[in-house]
Amino acid sequence: MIKPRMREELYINLNPLQRGGIVPAEARKTALAYIDGYSTCDYCQGTLHLMKKPPIQDFLKDVAEFLNMDTAILTHGCREAKLIIMRSITTPGQTIVVDSNKHYTTQVVAELAGLEIAEVPNSGYPRFQINPEDYANTIEKVKKEKGKPPALALLTHVDWLYGNLVDATTVGKICQEYDIPFLINTAYSSGRMPIDGKLLHADFITCSGHKSWAAGAGTVGILAMKKEWEKKIMKPSRHYKVKPLELLGCTTRGTSALTLMASFPRVKERAKNWSGEVEKARWLSAHMESLGGIRQLGEKPHCHDLLNFETPVLHRIAQKHKRRGYYLYEELRKRKIVGIKPGRTKSLDLSTYELNTEQMSYIVDNFKDIINKL
Amino acid sequence: MIKPRMREELYINLNPLQRGGIVPAEARKTALAYIDGYSTCDYCQGTLHLMKKPPIQDFLKDVAEFLNMDTAILTHGCREAKLIIMRSITTPGQTIVVDSNKHYTTQVVAELAGLEIAEVPNSGYPRFQINPEDYANTIEKVKKEKGKPPALALLTHVDWLYGNLVDATTVGKICQEYDIPFLINTAYSSGRMPIDGKLLHADFITCSGHKSWAAGAGTVGILAMKKEWEKKIMKPSRHYKVKPLELLGCTTRGTSALTLMASFPRVKERAKNWSGEVEKARWLSAHMESLGGIRQLGEKPHCHDLLNFETPVLHRIAQKHKRRGYYLYEELRKRKIVGIKPGRTKSLDLSTYELNTEQMSYIVDNFKDIINKL
Repeated sequence: MIKPRMREELYINLNPLQRGGIVPAEARKTALAYIDGYSTCDYCQGTLHLMKKPPIQDFLKDVAEFLNMDTAILTHGCREAKLIIMRSITTPGQTIVVDSNKHYTTQVVAELAGLEIAEVPNSGYPRFQINPEDYANTIEKVKKEKGKPPALALLTHVDWLYGNLVDATTVGKICQEYDIPFLINTAYSSGRMPIDGKLLHADFITCSGHKSWAAGAGTVGILAMKKEWEKKIMKPSRHYKVKPLELLGCTTRGTSALTLMASFPRVKERAKNWSGEVEKARWLSAHMESLGGIRQLGEKPHCHDLLNFETPVLHRIAQKHKRRGYYLYEELRKRKIVGIKPGRTKSLDLSTYELNTEQMSYIVDNFKDIINKL
Repeated sequence: MIKPRMREELYINLNPLQRGGIVPAEARKTALAYIDGYSTCDYCQGTLHLMKKPPIQDFLKDVAEFLNMDTAILTHGCREAKLIIMRSITTPGQTIVVDSNKHYTTQVVAELAGLEIAEVPNSGYPRFQINPEDYANTIEKVKKEKGKPPALALLTHVDWLYGNLVDATTVGKICQEYDIPFLINTAYSSGRMPIDGKLLHADFITCSGHKSWAAGAGTVGILAMKKEWEKKIMKPSRHYKVKPLELLGCTTRGTSALTLMASFPRVKERAKNWSGEVEKARWLSAHMESLGGIRQLGEKPHCHDLLNFETPVLHRIAQKHKRRGYYLYEELRKRKIVGIKPGRTKSLDLSTYELNTEQMSYIVDNFKDIINKL
């Protein structure tokens, strides 16, 4: 028995994983129209990213333009895009440089590709910031220890835990100076905010459709790249000239691809309102801190909708409450607020993305009420 | 501009790629309820295949039972399942045995995994059958040429071109005698017909959700295996104990997984009617051949809904017709029949899966009418 999911309909959902992936009504219609298996393949000529009907090829051109990159292709997700890149341009045993705020999949992908990781440290508690200049130090360190420069530098543009936005342009310039390919993981940035790949000196940009492009359906990602990398990334199978080897021919087909496409006009629109989203996050941060015993971690002033708070005031309540840490989840749920991990009270991470001001006030009022009551 | 797809609503669709992936109404509702990004992750404990809510773990247990295998996991698709297996249990440079009716992705996956292929030949025109006993010859050949047995044997249970069903039990027994892991690619069989993995001596079964399990949405597949392989296939990342390395943590989430789950009760039911489906295919084969100048290729009597015809009578018309080969596609489309490749008249491949008798008669009548008219 599968219960219908009514999270966005009945609750305010604060889950940072989910706020950028809510599918607008117009895309839901398209999703359903393409729900059947291989629905994208009615007019297949052999290669997914060249499909004219539905207009996947045109869409990918638009996406490349939106990101100011040369080429974009569909992948099963952001992690799969990272794997395609690493496997196409590195060889097992090589070292790559990544930031220490990386997503877990960056490490898993590197492990699967047989790569060593050298980390750019963050500034530690309470800001956990990545200093872009430190990429030079880590690159130098690799050169010294391994006798050659790293095969790739990866930056998590906005990290999943603190929502810190890193100055990618500076990292990009450093990579350019050292002649190291530069991959920006934009799982939490592209699709929410404007991204100019050329300005950031990106060789590769990986995107998460279901995380930040209002896509949902199955998992879906985008790999955007500079023209010079196309040959390596899209290398065809020895046996089938129209089938890119690392993509196993075709990647995500059907609803997931079509939902991404149908949501794209809305995504382009919403990216223009990014400064408004940042304002909202700062507003919530300030108002949560004003409740007392709550402190925003990560970058300040904050530049992203993903916020992380340490919450000793909520943790103190848990120690005396009969439901222990679960009281917070339950109190919030009663008030129709979800997306906070059950049992956790020491810290909170949440996103304000696309919440309206009424919802924002409602959230602060209810945290205040819970603290006062308990 | 994305046009809504109305193929199943307005036409009789003969495309063999698509007939097993039509999503029933009850699953469409679930698909829409789970359309938002990361919708499966509301109650995430870290591992997709162990998810209790929605009941992915229970579903996968049911699937393993349905296939009579020990364990089943979700993958992005059948090809991705094959890649996970090959990469987990072989090393680059090894040789595997496959049938010559294999899907192109089998070859691409082997290429990506760095494996050599030794092929079991088919019987050639007009039956193109794989003799299961020939697996022994090819295994012997590999042993002789390479000095050791192949690392894996793969059988395409039903091939995509002729719809030939191979006696997998005999192949399985041979593999058991030689102690070679046996993978059955059931992209066109499981989800349509009953499969008993133990009876077939399968170590691995790979399934295509969007091809044969009425799943659609994004791409989705199943990898079912014997218990003894679990450790290798599910090997965790060195850094994250709950994240299987070859799966990059989690594979397909959201609508694609949920559609597969919601369609499953219907899939179990329809598999019971497999003999009825075979009857229909045989009926169509006989009636198409009775039109004259049409000959069914592949196994006879046929044991699967996928049929391949050589059609000299239709090709002769093309040579005189002003629209050349496109006349057939256009004539059929006028009559609300689609799924035949535009321009092709030398041969046809189609599927009768889940067509009703009225639709079947309508198809034969219209082919007859086109031949008589032109």
